[in-house]
Amino acid sequence: MAILERIHSSEDIKKLSDQELEPLCAEIRAFLIEKVSRTGGHLASNLGAVELTVALHRVYDSSRDRILFDVGHQSYTHKIITGRRERFDSLRQYGGLSGFPKPYESGDDPFVAGHASDSVSVALGMAKARTQAREDYKVAAVIGDGAMTGGLAYEGLEAAAASGEPLVIILNDNAMSIDRNVGGMARLLQKLRVRPGYISFKRWYRNALAGLPGVYHFTHAVKERLKALLLPDNMFSAMGFDYMGPVDGHDAVALETVIRWAEEMKKPVIVHVLTKKGKGCPYAEAHPELYHGVGPFDPVTGEILSSGESFSDVFGETLCSLARRDGRITAFTAAMAGGTGLDGFAKSFPDRFVDAGIAEGHAAAMAAGMAKQGALPVFAVYSSFLQRSYDMLIHDVALQGLHVTLCIDRAGIVGSDGETHHGIFDMSYLNSVPGMTVFCPASFQELRDMLEEAVFACSGPVAVRYPRGGEGAYTGSVTQAEYTVREGSDVTVACYGTMVNEALQAAELLARAGLSAQVVKLGRIGGEGFPLTLASLAKTGRLVMAEEVCAAGCVGERILAEAARKSVSLQGARLLNLGQGIVPHGDRKRLMRDFRIDAQAIADAAEELCQPERR
Amino acid sequence: MAILERIHSSEDIKKLSDQELEPLCAEIRAFLIEKVSRTGGHLASNLGAVELTVALHRVYDSSRDRILFDVGHQSYTHKIITGRRERFDSLRQYGGLSGFPKPYESGDDPFVAGHASDSVSVALGMAKARTQAREDYKVAAVIGDGAMTGGLAYEGLEAAAASGEPLVIILNDNAMSIDRNVGGMARLLQKLRVRPGYISFKRWYRNALAGLPGVYHFTHAVKERLKALLLPDNMFSAMGFDYMGPVDGHDAVALETVIRWAEEMKKPVIVHVLTKKGKGCPYAEAHPELYHGVGPFDPVTGEILSSGESFSDVFGETLCSLARRDGRITAFTAAMAGGTGLDGFAKSFPDRFVDAGIAEGHAAAMAAGMAKQGALPVFAVYSSFLQRSYDMLIHDVALQGLHVTLCIDRAGIVGSDGETHHGIFDMSYLNSVPGMTVFCPASFQELRDMLEEAVFACSGPVAVRYPRGGEGAYTGSVTQAEYTVREGSDVTVACYGTMVNEALQAAELLARAGLSAQVVKLGRIGGEGFPLTLASLAKTGRLVMAEEVCAAGCVGERILAEAARKSVSLQGARLLNLGQGIVPHGDRKRLMRDFRIDAQAIADAAEELCQPERR
Repeated sequence: MAILERIHSSEDIKKLSDQELEPLCAEIRAFLIEKVSRTGGHLASNLGAVELTVALHRVYDSSRDRILFDVGHQSYTHKIITGRRERFDSLRQYGGLSGFPKPYESGDDPFVAGHASDSVSVALGMAKARTQAREDYKVAAVIGDGAMTGGLAYEGLEAAAASGEPLVIILNDNAMSIDRNVGGMARLLQKLRVRPGYISFKRWYRNALAGLPGVYHFTHAVKERLKALLLPDNMFSAMGFDYMGPVDGHDAVALETVIRWAEEMKKPVIVHVLTKKGKGCPYAEAHPELYHGVGPFDPVTGEILSSGESFSDVFGETLCSLARRDGRITAFTAAMAGGTGLDGFAKSFPDRFVDAGIAEGHAAAMAAGMAKQGALPVFAVYSSFLQRSYDMLIHDVALQGLHVTLCIDRAGIVGSDGETHHGIFDMSYLNSVPGMTVFCPASFQELRDMLEEAVFACSGPVAVRYPRGGEGAYTGSVTQAEYTVREGSDVTVACYGTMVNEALQAAELLARAGLSAQVVKLGRIGGEGFPLTLASLAKTGRLVMAEEVCAAGCVGERILAEAARKSVSLQGARLLNLGQGIVPHGDRKRLMRDFRIDAQAIADAAEELCQPERR
Repeated sequence: MAILERIHSSEDIKKLSDQELEPLCAEIRAFLIEKVSRTGGHLASNLGAVELTVALHRVYDSSRDRILFDVGHQSYTHKIITGRRERFDSLRQYGGLSGFPKPYESGDDPFVAGHASDSVSVALGMAKARTQAREDYKVAAVIGDGAMTGGLAYEGLEAAAASGEPLVIILNDNAMSIDRNVGGMARLLQKLRVRPGYISFKRWYRNALAGLPGVYHFTHAVKERLKALLLPDNMFSAMGFDYMGPVDGHDAVALETVIRWAEEMKKPVIVHVLTKKGKGCPYAEAHPELYHGVGPFDPVTGEILSSGESFSDVFGETLCSLARRDGRITAFTAAMAGGTGLDGFAKSFPDRFVDAGIAEGHAAAMAAGMAKQGALPVFAVYSSFLQRSYDMLIHDVALQGLHVTLCIDRAGIVGSDGETHHGIFDMSYLNSVPGMTVFCPASFQELRDMLEEAVFACSGPVAVRYPRGGEGAYTGSVTQAEYTVREGSDVTVACYGTMVNEALQAAELLARAGLSAQVVKLGRIGGEGFPLTLASLAKTGRLVMAEEVCAAGCVGERILAEAARKSVSLQGARLLNLGQGIVPHGDRKRLMRDFRIDAQAIADAAEELCQPERR
């Protein structure tokens, strides 16, 4: 750690000699492996971006220049360099360092990131704002080949090319889109990768460097020669970019040279950088997909601590068994085959498995096309990423009542990924999709039963929504729209999904305090009103509804509106939820406590409502 | 009309000789100009696609094969050919022919269309469903160069290229994206357009045809020669498509030949077709933008009937005057400069005007980037198209509280464009965007005042929402969140935006019936509760709320929930709205009557609520 300990900001990186960069990168790698093995996090992509990040900080001053890491999961080295090294034990923990860029955490983080493919658009906006304000800071976006499969990235590229704005886009190509073989961009990049220019550039560059006093003092003639080698006629150049590459992404000195040169061009430039996910860590290099987002593991052997059966696992297994019964079922994922539990399906039914890449809009529209022709598409997707499909859910799916099944994973609080990843807007935005029915399984068995019902017994758009992780104490299975899980008379506690565990626990707490809570579990939400819940309210006169979603458009609001419409008068009501929906990272239990939606909060709210009578 | 009168289906087109195609196309053009001059509609793009559509029907059987017209505004010739010619007087009228493809209207329309750029994804879904079901129908998508600027199209192309599915994508290139000069794709297409191959193909093709018995009997050698001429190395071929073109889009015989050949390839093929918007109609050729979507006009001179001042006009003028005061203001549009009233701004402030192309997601993300760096971005966009930005509004704008101003045009019922274009989901989806404030001007002056307040006096995400067309009787200006427009005691009628006209008229009707209605106008909605409305409800005990939006997540629901939460008990409440939100095309007044949200419906609902006491 001899060198790393001297690094507290961009400035310190610039003071190092070229010879110190390689050992620095080795130190950073050792640091990353040690820390992430304890906290969990994004390992492989960060190991792949060490030299690139160091090179960026040699060229840019991140306190002033704006470096936009697309998705931002690869920004650990950036955080280490910009004064946050000593906080790494708290990575992704409640109150600790975020695993993604956060302007509130550091002025060196220019923008919130988490969802893929927006960096070029955001960078272009910043570059334009800079030029309009006649300032001179620099703007760079760092985007992976995976994120490049998203249509938003393409929209950004089109606009950036046309803008003429000085702007450097680093395409961090670790061949992830190739491994998944998701489409045309992958093919295009593959062609670029094997260009002879790459090899000859490397050779030539090494020779040229040896005879030069410093790497930054290329003559015009030298640059022109480099340009001829590096700028082929490809999609990027056709769009209007100067394209440079591919460049070895693990040669910090070469990267610095090329990025510096790209900056000097004062126009939109793409620098194509080849990196290896997991670089320098044998197990992560061998299985980058396992160490992409990973929980705690053994730093020596790479052995990952098992995390138990999850809703995703149960979904994957169940869909396989349904697919064996019915050849019309086709599974969709948007670059999350592993995360959504579809790995097994992909192996068993390769012809009926579609990985759309990071293209949730396309996945929804393509699924709609399949449904129109009689297939049974099932799109497994994280709640937060499905936000990208909102228009397609309305326009392509719902307006003509097509039967597309959404399997919405990571619904509710997801924990350590934080603000950008919590699945807490879905109940609200799905509510406005015409004819949408949302199943909310509370246990593994309910997921199995509801998935079957959703696919085979429903028509029109339908969603099955479940959280990250596993089930709780409740392991029953009731697929009814509304069901009384526990009888009571003083207060109605309504809930859905795994929140039933908190509700039942709250009822126990209340019982000990002498209060009788009726617990109503909503198994299916959509268009049918809430007759059983209203009947319970007519009896108890009090509602506590706890939800892991934002307040606006929450189910509790709908129940209250229905009560008012049906003139069911209430003595009191408490809607417990996540307010505006900006929820930081951290342990789910802890966040539920802080946001007052856990068993204790439910019990407290119920007691408060009942107090007037208890006095 | 000698030939056209014999055409009732795809089959009839196939019976024509090659020589009859040109006169048929002339008849169709005359028919289109005559009909659209009376009903209004999409003229220029339909005139440009006549030969292409005829050629498609020579090759395909649209009752079985699936021809997907992207957006679908260019599908008039398709409708004429497929048995709907005699209904053209009813085009875009209530109960009449839709201006867009509608499966409920005809089995020859394969899918609902209206929003741009989804056709490749939908076509790929259909092609995959076909292959999985071992059927053999054909699938083709027809997509314009404008729609090609959308990221969704790119996602679809990537996936289609990788799929290997037999699928023909017709790129109908009328250089619209060039005229707007929106980005890299435009540049790329421009390069393709001027390739020498195009010219030589035309010459060679004419010669070859002259010596051949029929156009469909090319030998292998002839095809190989064509291929060499037509298949350059470009982005599409790099992605994995066979690319053919450019082909003259006004030569039906050539088009038929090439499409037939593309079909024979049994793989993903792109056919690049060059067409001219407005073709064959001098005024539409000269000003295609004026005759894109147009109201009634004089078929001889092209003179367009004036439609009076609109909210869009007032928005455009106001933004210009604000921009003169503050250099930080930058206006965004997504390919709708004319429709949103930004034409004048674009001329006055070219450096502060961004046309993102059909890329609402990018526009929102880029605006967020600008806002983060201190600029004042104002994104003018149709309500329905803003659905594409939902994720970016949350992720890029709201999570970090950035001050982006959305100017949401075409909110509420838009009339003749129908299901896909009504702006009736926005109040629901904007509600879930953290920190969003929605201004709802009810008059031109309120739009002026509220826009100024939104841009200069607000922070965080903010929207100003107004309808298509002009103001009504109400011309006041009150920018308060809640305001009593009329005092009353029997019932509270709450409303926002131009619905205040219906509410005030209803109050008049009620007064005549001896009932006193208090009319509360909501000027600003978001997070503040509804204290004045609740106070009115506490007094009257009855609520009628009328909204031009879908029921789910409507403002009335929020008011009822708030009433229940605050224990304001109601004797009755009626939420008048558009139910699930599937609203057909037709006159706005008529639709408001049918959906029971007009003055009479408000008065009826109020009377019904008050009846118990009147007995």
